[in-house]
Amino acid sequence: MKLSLDIRPEGEILKIPSVHALHSIFNPRAFAVIGASDTPGKWGHRMIDRPLKTGFQGAIYPINPAKKEILGLTAYPTISAVPAEIDMAVLTTPAASVPALLQECIHKGVKGAVVISAGFAETGEAGRKLEQEIVAVARAGGIRLVGPNCMGIFSASAHLSLCFPIAPKAGSIAFVSQSGTFGVSIAQVAAAQGYGLSKFVSIGNQADLGVADYLEYLAEDAQTNVIALYVEGFKDGERFFDVARRVIKKKPIIVYKAGRSEAAERAALSHTASVAGSAVVFDNICKQIGVLQVHESFHLFEMAQALAGLPVPQGNRVAILGSGGQGVVGTDACVALGIDLPQLDAGTAAAITALLPPHAPKPRNPVDFAGATRTAMQEAEIIEQFLKLDYIDGVISNVPVSPQLWDHHLVIDRQAKTHAPHVQVAIQGGERYAALPRKYGKPIICLRFANLEHDTMEEILGEGGIPIYSSPEQCARAMHALVHYGRVRRRN
Amino acid sequence: MKLSLDIRPEGEILKIPSVHALHSIFNPRAFAVIGASDTPGKWGHRMIDRPLKTGFQGAIYPINPAKKEILGLTAYPTISAVPAEIDMAVLTTPAASVPALLQECIHKGVKGAVVISAGFAETGEAGRKLEQEIVAVARAGGIRLVGPNCMGIFSASAHLSLCFPIAPKAGSIAFVSQSGTFGVSIAQVAAAQGYGLSKFVSIGNQADLGVADYLEYLAEDAQTNVIALYVEGFKDGERFFDVARRVIKKKPIIVYKAGRSEAAERAALSHTASVAGSAVVFDNICKQIGVLQVHESFHLFEMAQALAGLPVPQGNRVAILGSGGQGVVGTDACVALGIDLPQLDAGTAAAITALLPPHAPKPRNPVDFAGATRTAMQEAEIIEQFLKLDYIDGVISNVPVSPQLWDHHLVIDRQAKTHAPHVQVAIQGGERYAALPRKYGKPIICLRFANLEHDTMEEILGEGGIPIYSSPEQCARAMHALVHYGRVRRRN
Repeated sequence: MKLSLDIRPEGEILKIPSVHALHSIFNPRAFAVIGASDTPGKWGHRMIDRPLKTGFQGAIYPINPAKKEILGLTAYPTISAVPAEIDMAVLTTPAASVPALLQECIHKGVKGAVVISAGFAETGEAGRKLEQEIVAVARAGGIRLVGPNCMGIFSASAHLSLCFPIAPKAGSIAFVSQSGTFGVSIAQVAAAQGYGLSKFVSIGNQADLGVADYLEYLAEDAQTNVIALYVEGFKDGERFFDVARRVIKKKPIIVYKAGRSEAAERAALSHTASVAGSAVVFDNICKQIGVLQVHESFHLFEMAQALAGLPVPQGNRVAILGSGGQGVVGTDACVALGIDLPQLDAGTAAAITALLPPHAPKPRNPVDFAGATRTAMQEAEIIEQFLKLDYIDGVISNVPVSPQLWDHHLVIDRQAKTHAPHVQVAIQGGERYAALPRKYGKPIICLRFANLEHDTMEEILGEGGIPIYSSPEQCARAMHALVHYGRVRRRN
Repeated sequence: MKLSLDIRPEGEILKIPSVHALHSIFNPRAFAVIGASDTPGKWGHRMIDRPLKTGFQGAIYPINPAKKEILGLTAYPTISAVPAEIDMAVLTTPAASVPALLQECIHKGVKGAVVISAGFAETGEAGRKLEQEIVAVARAGGIRLVGPNCMGIFSASAHLSLCFPIAPKAGSIAFVSQSGTFGVSIAQVAAAQGYGLSKFVSIGNQADLGVADYLEYLAEDAQTNVIALYVEGFKDGERFFDVARRVIKKKPIIVYKAGRSEAAERAALSHTASVAGSAVVFDNICKQIGVLQVHESFHLFEMAQALAGLPVPQGNRVAILGSGGQGVVGTDACVALGIDLPQLDAGTAAAITALLPPHAPKPRNPVDFAGATRTAMQEAEIIEQFLKLDYIDGVISNVPVSPQLWDHHLVIDRQAKTHAPHVQVAIQGGERYAALPRKYGKPIICLRFANLEHDTMEEILGEGGIPIYSSPEQCARAMHALVHYGRVRRRN
């Protein structure tokens, strides 16, 4: 099945495999910015200013024939004039200049280029020809290209951000986006919500490197645990699915496929020159392979976060601990996603009753704390009762009660042993709680309504890989992602 | 159709109609707290501490036979001993004491009581009898009851919060929740996200006043434009739908109905003694009447916010202005919800082309700014082109470009005429933008990815009733709510 035209000649052997080229692009020892500028707001300025601000440790070479220095760095008239080896080049010059400049990059021994420049296939026939030309140049010279018409990359391990003005928190979610502005925007919102990224790439027109290449690279990337994709269309759908079939055995893949409606496909076409292809065909193949599709863009990160740090469950049987309506809504949301909530056996119910306040209803599943005050240790004990059961594969609960919930000004140094006893016990309870996923090989997902600026519990849960969400439905979706991937893993 | 047992005798004429009683409860000149306490954390403490902190201007009378003073207020041994008129009483004492205390309230001439106390029908047969007893007492004495087993109320107009430690922003969304903890939690998260509330009530077991009564009251409430409900079950489903059928002609009603799955129904039963009833029957009646159902709890506020301040559209034909993937995703989300995106006629396309950067694709719908820098005035001009069209009923766009996006430290005093010209023009552009919904009687929904701490544009849009969301899908849902209610209004 072809979703779209394959522009790579059959059986062609590329001089630099995509995985190697992408290693040079995401972890360059040195890179050049062709079209470097000292005018703020220009792409040639941002591509230097941002990596300097995000702490890139390698060398940056501004290329501009009219300047001696840009942003405190020595500028060179051409890339050939740089007296050092260069792994990667970023091009920000007008489209027509790109073929000749790429030629120079090849001559210099650059392995990969990020082509920010727009004005290629997305603009019509002339642009399409120019795009074919840069691909021909790259193929002949053995260089590999990100873009064109893209917004660059982010690499947490290299402290290298071309796309974000402020580097997001480092984490193990890789995000590949076909839309620059939108991808950068949702990645920024995600970062502000605390989702940590390992890599980000705005893939633009995919003239050379395409979604499948990024997948192949990220499958090998030690910093990446889960791969999230925003895709409008494919250059080579068949190859994407071939690669995805292999990669998914190692790492989960979550995709938001845009351009499902006719009106949206029209927009995608003028945006990144992509033919969206049939949504039904795409859905079916994803299902076969085990690629998890989301139908709301932010769900990418919600679900990825759970997959980034938690053990994958053996089945779909979950227990919920929560108060009142939260348990009811959480249960509805789980059931709607095919998650089972087995009723507790009499022995477990009795053991949990002993840990609940007297006015709480008889523990079934969900288990209701009935709004009562409890301690982190009590919560950890109840959850441990759940996790011991062979008919429970995972738990959805709350962020354990934090001493900072009652005293916002409390500064907690976890190494200090001088805390008030209730604070000490809360920390111990939290630590016991956070250790449970690894101890039992089963996931715990947490809900938090209250937003605390500083919260030790959040930090403690993070160490256990436990994600925190602000609604029962988000928790259910996160658990669904884990259950889904557990199924994929058992099948492969 | 009966969703559940109707405990109100047929044809009974209540001495105090629910609307009058609820007026006394939401806007009391004076109220008593029976079971008042000076121990922080106790309900009898919170019920005094919170309204004092939220600026309640009326009188509060703590009732406690063992105290002379609580939180700086004179305490009285009984409500009868208070030497002043009292509109409302809050009861926090053990369940068994409630019937006699209600009797005293009746004797004192109190019109409504909020019964926080738990231990009624939600606990089993004995509790059910006790609940029947308090209803009998209330009926005989003509007092009306919120609860029991509830977390109280919030009234923005009275600066009265029994349920929130910090009063949420005043606004025109009323929220009625059958779950206390969950309702309070999601209302708090909503408030933190900037959704303004007019009233909130945790309805508990609905022994006397039920969802239908709150609807009737809120339909008359001048501060409320839209009514959001979290419901697990009904005491009298038939009456709810009768009332909803009338109320919806005046104000939109949005409902999240919990307990749809068997497991969740089990949880709801032990939680607020509610029989959930058939989800299918409920769904069908909502559809007939025009009550908008959501299947994710937070969608209540997203959708309510649009309905709170915008004109209702005449049809479902929408234009989108946005960059790249945002337009693609927004289009997909709209189409999935039954919203049409008509292609633009040649004349309009030409007029808009003149307002776009030269590299932008030909404007169809969605219209793509192609990531270009633009001004608030340009955005307002394009949106005005849309709104003039007889085949466009509403617009989804961005928060217009704000000067504070480029300079976070900029403090903008809109009355001052001393701003730099580009700041002045941005403010004028924003004001023109914000005036468009009223000028054309058509809604505008805004997307904002960047989170700014201080943003004049946000304030300006708020004056025009324009809501701001952080994803294209949220914008689409908000527009869907408006389109839906437009249809309901034309039908009625």
